[in-house]
Amino acid sequence: MAYEKEDLDHLVEETETYLNDRKYVSAREAIIDLEPFDIAYIMEELPEDTIPLMFRLLPKELAAEVFVELDTDSQEKLIKGFSKAELKEVLDELYLDDTVDIIEEMPANVVKRILATTDPDTRRSINNILQYPEDSTGSIMTTEYVDVKRNMTVADALKKIRRVGQDMETINVMYIVDRDRHLLGFLSIRDLLLAEETQLMEEIMDTSVIAAQTLDDQEETARKFEKYDFLTMPIVDKENRLVGIVTVDDALDVLVEETTEDIERMAAITPSYKPYLNTGILETVRSRIPWLLLLMISATFTGQIISSFEDALASQAILTAYIPMLMDTGGNSGSQASVSIIRGISLDEISLKDLGKVIWKEIRVSVIVGCVLAVCNFGKLMLVDRMIFHNPITTNIALVICCTLVVTVFAAKLVGCTLPIFAKAIGFDPAVMASPFITTIVDAISLLIYFRFAQTLLGI
Amino acid sequence: MAYEKEDLDHLVEETETYLNDRKYVSAREAIIDLEPFDIAYIMEELPEDTIPLMFRLLPKELAAEVFVELDTDSQEKLIKGFSKAELKEVLDELYLDDTVDIIEEMPANVVKRILATTDPDTRRSINNILQYPEDSTGSIMTTEYVDVKRNMTVADALKKIRRVGQDMETINVMYIVDRDRHLLGFLSIRDLLLAEETQLMEEIMDTSVIAAQTLDDQEETARKFEKYDFLTMPIVDKENRLVGIVTVDDALDVLVEETTEDIERMAAITPSYKPYLNTGILETVRSRIPWLLLLMISATFTGQIISSFEDALASQAILTAYIPMLMDTGGNSGSQASVSIIRGISLDEISLKDLGKVIWKEIRVSVIVGCVLAVCNFGKLMLVDRMIFHNPITTNIALVICCTLVVTVFAAKLVGCTLPIFAKAIGFDPAVMASPFITTIVDAISLLIYFRFAQTLLGI
Repeated sequence: MAYEKEDLDHLVEETETYLNDRKYVSAREAIIDLEPFDIAYIMEELPEDTIPLMFRLLPKELAAEVFVELDTDSQEKLIKGFSKAELKEVLDELYLDDTVDIIEEMPANVVKRILATTDPDTRRSINNILQYPEDSTGSIMTTEYVDVKRNMTVADALKKIRRVGQDMETINVMYIVDRDRHLLGFLSIRDLLLAEETQLMEEIMDTSVIAAQTLDDQEETARKFEKYDFLTMPIVDKENRLVGIVTVDDALDVLVEETTEDIERMAAITPSYKPYLNTGILETVRSRIPWLLLLMISATFTGQIISSFEDALASQAILTAYIPMLMDTGGNSGSQASVSIIRGISLDEISLKDLGKVIWKEIRVSVIVGCVLAVCNFGKLMLVDRMIFHNPITTNIALVICCTLVVTVFAAKLVGCTLPIFAKAIGFDPAVMASPFITTIVDAISLLIYFRFAQTLLGI
Repeated sequence: MAYEKEDLDHLVEETETYLNDRKYVSAREAIIDLEPFDIAYIMEELPEDTIPLMFRLLPKELAAEVFVELDTDSQEKLIKGFSKAELKEVLDELYLDDTVDIIEEMPANVVKRILATTDPDTRRSINNILQYPEDSTGSIMTTEYVDVKRNMTVADALKKIRRVGQDMETINVMYIVDRDRHLLGFLSIRDLLLAEETQLMEEIMDTSVIAAQTLDDQEETARKFEKYDFLTMPIVDKENRLVGIVTVDDALDVLVEETTEDIERMAAITPSYKPYLNTGILETVRSRIPWLLLLMISATFTGQIISSFEDALASQAILTAYIPMLMDTGGNSGSQASVSIIRGISLDEISLKDLGKVIWKEIRVSVIVGCVLAVCNFGKLMLVDRMIFHNPITTNIALVICCTLVVTVFAAKLVGCTLPIFAKAIGFDPAVMASPFITTIVDAISLLIYFRFAQTLLGI
């Protein structure tokens, strides 16, 4: 049964009552049938000093699985509190890539403690994975996979799986390598089970294998899981030698993480990897202030444009009232275009080559959108604003506002669709070019257009 | 080997040349080793009338896999062009959930053609899945899974897999049911292979199984794959009877689709499920115009606020120049908060219960952010704007602007963090409450505050 957040919060209270009453067996029973992720949630909601106690109530294997799901702070506290034997027990149960993930988040003294407790083989593998740059495919791979030689029979392979399968992260796919570990092909467990016992690996393996390289960007590799419906993907070095695999659960985590990063960048927030409620006040402030400052200061230009047309505004004060509408509509039009393009780039649907197509599309869309908005706005200005609100709107003033609207929407959509593609082309993250950035540019453009039309049509 | 978009575009040209020269074998060889997704991409880029030809060049099984990856328009054209025998061949190769996905997108006459060609059993399963509402878990499940009875031995189960495994979407996990099909537990292929041949299913099965119900929201089910690292998940009816499974590749597609939907809503776009470049001009216009119109009309209030303070603005014209900066900073501050909260809600990290925590956090963040921005802005006003640009800034005017900044940031963050949570609580999509919507509200608030401070501090 799956638990909703509300059910879990209820279980937290229940468990806490048991712990206070020292009914440890009941506390254990309340949570032991849950998934590791949910147990971790409950432990984090309990008073901090009960975490080690709860942890020791769990059976060894489950405890290790829960450990992986805990947040970094709780993991660190537990590791520091463990006896050497306890730490070894937990680490022995972990998959290699989980151990690496944990090590990457820990301070140096804790890392030292972890590495000292693992056996030499594991330590070598950990160090190997740790050397790959953050965000590279190598940093999310595991070295625990089943590989078989080309001249093994199906029976040999099944025997190998029965021998080493327990320690591998997955046995759903096995990889066939030659003597120098060059990747030759793969075989799913299904095809293995359906084959004759005497068939050779090289006879039945699938050679059209898609591999990623250790230094490929992790998001790029993760997108391939989405495109090709993989469960695992082999990772090779530059000489096409198999060095690890990435599994779909890690690819999924990467996709969610990278998408959150995109969304945060689009909203002018420096991405963090922590859930909102776990992020400290100062950390949140730091992730938001630089962008607000930058955007605040760039709004100076908009202000200066208004200042320089002060006389025009003084002679037709009503023009000021429509500045917010023009700026907002421009900003919204621009961000509609930019966000569509940024998402398209993330999903690998749009590249620099498509620039012409994108611009041509946005030109046509913006002409239609701009004209429809202008016509509606003209009607509203003459009927609502003039007749009901008694604003001093003349036909010429309405024309100034509506012509500005058409040109602003046009400019906003063009800026919005091109900037992210250019950003990508010169190696920046396109997501940074989203709404706030576009808004600042479009504000300035729309004001310049506004005053130009006012000067021409109103003769001021 | 994995192909980049550029490589594929090159292959498109190559294939087109072969087709023009009627070198069909070369055309076939150019693409036959690619993944179905990439072949589909190439076929869609080729001249439309070559799609059926290319399709017939592919071996039967690969052709079916490519068919699944084609866009709806190409699928429809192919189905209409197929002979009855050809259609049957393709449909027989498809997995059930793929057939259902295709049927859901096709017009009625094509659906009729498909259903007439499938065998009665498949037709019954298709109709069964089709009856589930769009966005429900039932609509993305497949009925092709391996189920075994509790009293079967490991040897029996292996025999069953060898018999039916070829037609199942996955054999990585099998599900144990009783005589009335109630779900009792599951067993991974790994545990099956590692067990003794004579052990019974009920002895070795894992009973802590998390299932979803057919009517659960598909996004909710997909999030469970992310949380719990599942490869498949059993789907049960209200009586806990097993009716299907969802596999991780479909869950991944749902997550990507729902996230794109969120992002589009946040940018005031009505979500569509089509890639940007495949969406028609009018469709794009329709997805953008309603929101722009709505937001344009709500900007009327901002305009009316400015109109009603016309006299104040006339006496201190310089105040107008800082309206854009205040509005933009307010909008950006608000959308930083709202976007963080919306993402948190999507990822199930924030619920109504957390409202107090969220507000308390945003209050502290906004006070710090507001004060830092105000101090920086004060410095900029007095040093840059007054000394370099020679704007007529007095200390009092700078104070008006900076006090407004503090209160605006405060109000913006509060509105930004509460609206999405309330929207969720009353059953709306929180994503609609993102930047553009918040901006419109915050614009009005910041102007009111601005003029109030101006009246108080400048006595106008």
